[in-house]
Amino acid sequence: MREIEAKNLPDMARGAAVLGTGGGGDPYIGRLLAQQAIDRHGSVPLIDIEELPDDAVVIPTAFMGAPTVMLEKIPSGSELTGALQAVEHLIGKQATHTVSIEAGGMNSMIPFVAAAELGLPLVDADGMGRAFPELQMLLPTLGGIAATPMALADERGNIVSLRTADNKWAERFARSATIEMGCSAAVSLYVLSGKQVKEFMVHGTMSLCQRIGAAIRESAQAHLDPVAAAADLLDGRCIFRGKLVDVKRGTAGGFARGEAVLDGLAGDLGSRMGISFQNENLVAARDGVVVASVPDLICILDTDTGEPVTTEMLRYGLRVSVIAAPCDPRWRSPQGLELAGPGYFGYDHTYVPV
Amino acid sequence: MREIEAKNLPDMARGAAVLGTGGGGDPYIGRLLAQQAIDRHGSVPLIDIEELPDDAVVIPTAFMGAPTVMLEKIPSGSELTGALQAVEHLIGKQATHTVSIEAGGMNSMIPFVAAAELGLPLVDADGMGRAFPELQMLLPTLGGIAATPMALADERGNIVSLRTADNKWAERFARSATIEMGCSAAVSLYVLSGKQVKEFMVHGTMSLCQRIGAAIRESAQAHLDPVAAAADLLDGRCIFRGKLVDVKRGTAGGFARGEAVLDGLAGDLGSRMGISFQNENLVAARDGVVVASVPDLICILDTDTGEPVTTEMLRYGLRVSVIAAPCDPRWRSPQGLELAGPGYFGYDHTYVPV
Repeated sequence: MREIEAKNLPDMARGAAVLGTGGGGDPYIGRLLAQQAIDRHGSVPLIDIEELPDDAVVIPTAFMGAPTVMLEKIPSGSELTGALQAVEHLIGKQATHTVSIEAGGMNSMIPFVAAAELGLPLVDADGMGRAFPELQMLLPTLGGIAATPMALADERGNIVSLRTADNKWAERFARSATIEMGCSAAVSLYVLSGKQVKEFMVHGTMSLCQRIGAAIRESAQAHLDPVAAAADLLDGRCIFRGKLVDVKRGTAGGFARGEAVLDGLAGDLGSRMGISFQNENLVAARDGVVVASVPDLICILDTDTGEPVTTEMLRYGLRVSVIAAPCDPRWRSPQGLELAGPGYFGYDHTYVPV
Repeated sequence: MREIEAKNLPDMARGAAVLGTGGGGDPYIGRLLAQQAIDRHGSVPLIDIEELPDDAVVIPTAFMGAPTVMLEKIPSGSELTGALQAVEHLIGKQATHTVSIEAGGMNSMIPFVAAAELGLPLVDADGMGRAFPELQMLLPTLGGIAATPMALADERGNIVSLRTADNKWAERFARSATIEMGCSAAVSLYVLSGKQVKEFMVHGTMSLCQRIGAAIRESAQAHLDPVAAAADLLDGRCIFRGKLVDVKRGTAGGFARGEAVLDGLAGDLGSRMGISFQNENLVAARDGVVVASVPDLICILDTDTGEPVTTEMLRYGLRVSVIAAPCDPRWRSPQGLELAGPGYFGYDHTYVPV
């Protein structure tokens, strides 16, 4: 266990946005929200997964919706505690811990807000080892854990609670409620026991985020290659270096969807790359050939500074590098690929692991 | 208090469909559902509103959605108890009674299903004195009563619960959940104390339905005018008699919306009538002039048999008569007109009471 203070947040948010693969929300806004909560309520204990009692009641929190919208409709924080407390009411138990369901600039920071406001310790883990756009795409789903009882809350005080037949139904109802809430909502879902967290979540994600964020910062300060530093910690490699020459985007079905096109600036890595995204980067094709795809990680970083570039920040002229990195091995099982592989997203190529 | 048996249902369902002004669901399906529940569990006590204790916990039940869909996707009944029990869980209290929120072929019968299955007495009342398409359009809304905590349930076992900032937000979230459920859902909402039922609901609606249904049946059997018999009990008058020559309809935003055109067959009542509907009949224009509109009742009856014709049953060639009848006086207040007057539905004519 260690206490996370406001000064630890910038590295952690930066690293989380790298693991967020374009989605998971903006690291700047995420960090500000967590910082405000810690300034108000004090530091948050981050506990190792091994320290978690098997009978702990772990209630995760997150934001759901289109990240493009969250840039302008900034969460207040009170929605989050509203969502978590609605779940407590549904299950008739109080949370002993909270945890992040996905790694992402906002969704790794948001649990600090809930933890600080409610005085809960945060578990050093997450449910994906990355970010994914739909709520059933969690490793606990592969373990048969129900996403519901879940609750969504907005800044007006509206609470929508769900108990659904399966996790895809939870996604359907939650998505339509999120759209009514203005395309962003605080959510609390996937109530887990300590034992289930140990079995089904990814261990040490928050610490990994912090290490990645620190490595990028230190490499950039030392005028070394921050992209290479991040790729090393991700066990991945740089698959493209170039300039953003086109972005198509729209907010459809409650998601930020679109495609980015890069022109190559490093000849040996190809001359053109297209990256399609649905909140997160899904598929990267280099000179017409798919070179990385979900469930593996496709991370876009600013070439000079190593700062992660979320899909909503993509704009003409950016000089970026693209890292491809392996996902948690459980995503590569047949069940994992069915849940979040290229076929689920409508692509017909066969998944080739990075 | 009197016991309602299966043999009492046909008259009551027929009369309810008249008050349903085209909406509120199909009386045949509604009656079959109620009959099945009474056959299985025994008769249902219908109690006068005066017999209701002030501290009663009254939890209404209904079906929400597009009646056109309910003709093909027939409710099973178990959704209803699921919705009511979800509300009980939210409020931490058990229902002592149930009641209808609106008069309608299905929505006056549905509470018998909940009452029979859960062993609850049914209160002889409803929340509108007619049917309206949106869930905030209840007299209790005028009294400041919250529609939520509410719950929606479907045949798959999905439950969506709501606590909202106001009743229009309840409508928004409930409508989008209903659409995800396939455009029809069992709902339970507007938890009322016995005292609130007495103050804010319409007294004696179920008995009035039964009287209207019996009068129509008896007039038709005696080869008298069943339309006139219904109009008498509604304090209304026949405003048109004709043949249906056109129906435009669509299922949009979770509602059955459209317009019917009638050619006159009784010269003194005009030569053409257009009736626009959103689940319920909203506005009747005779030879281009609005002659009746919400919140007053516009009821379409088969001219020969007096059987009520719901909007989803409208089809070319039907010989029908149109009754206009006054609504509950509370709907004619400025607040009532704001909630369910022609302006709310996008019409710019001034409301002229029938």
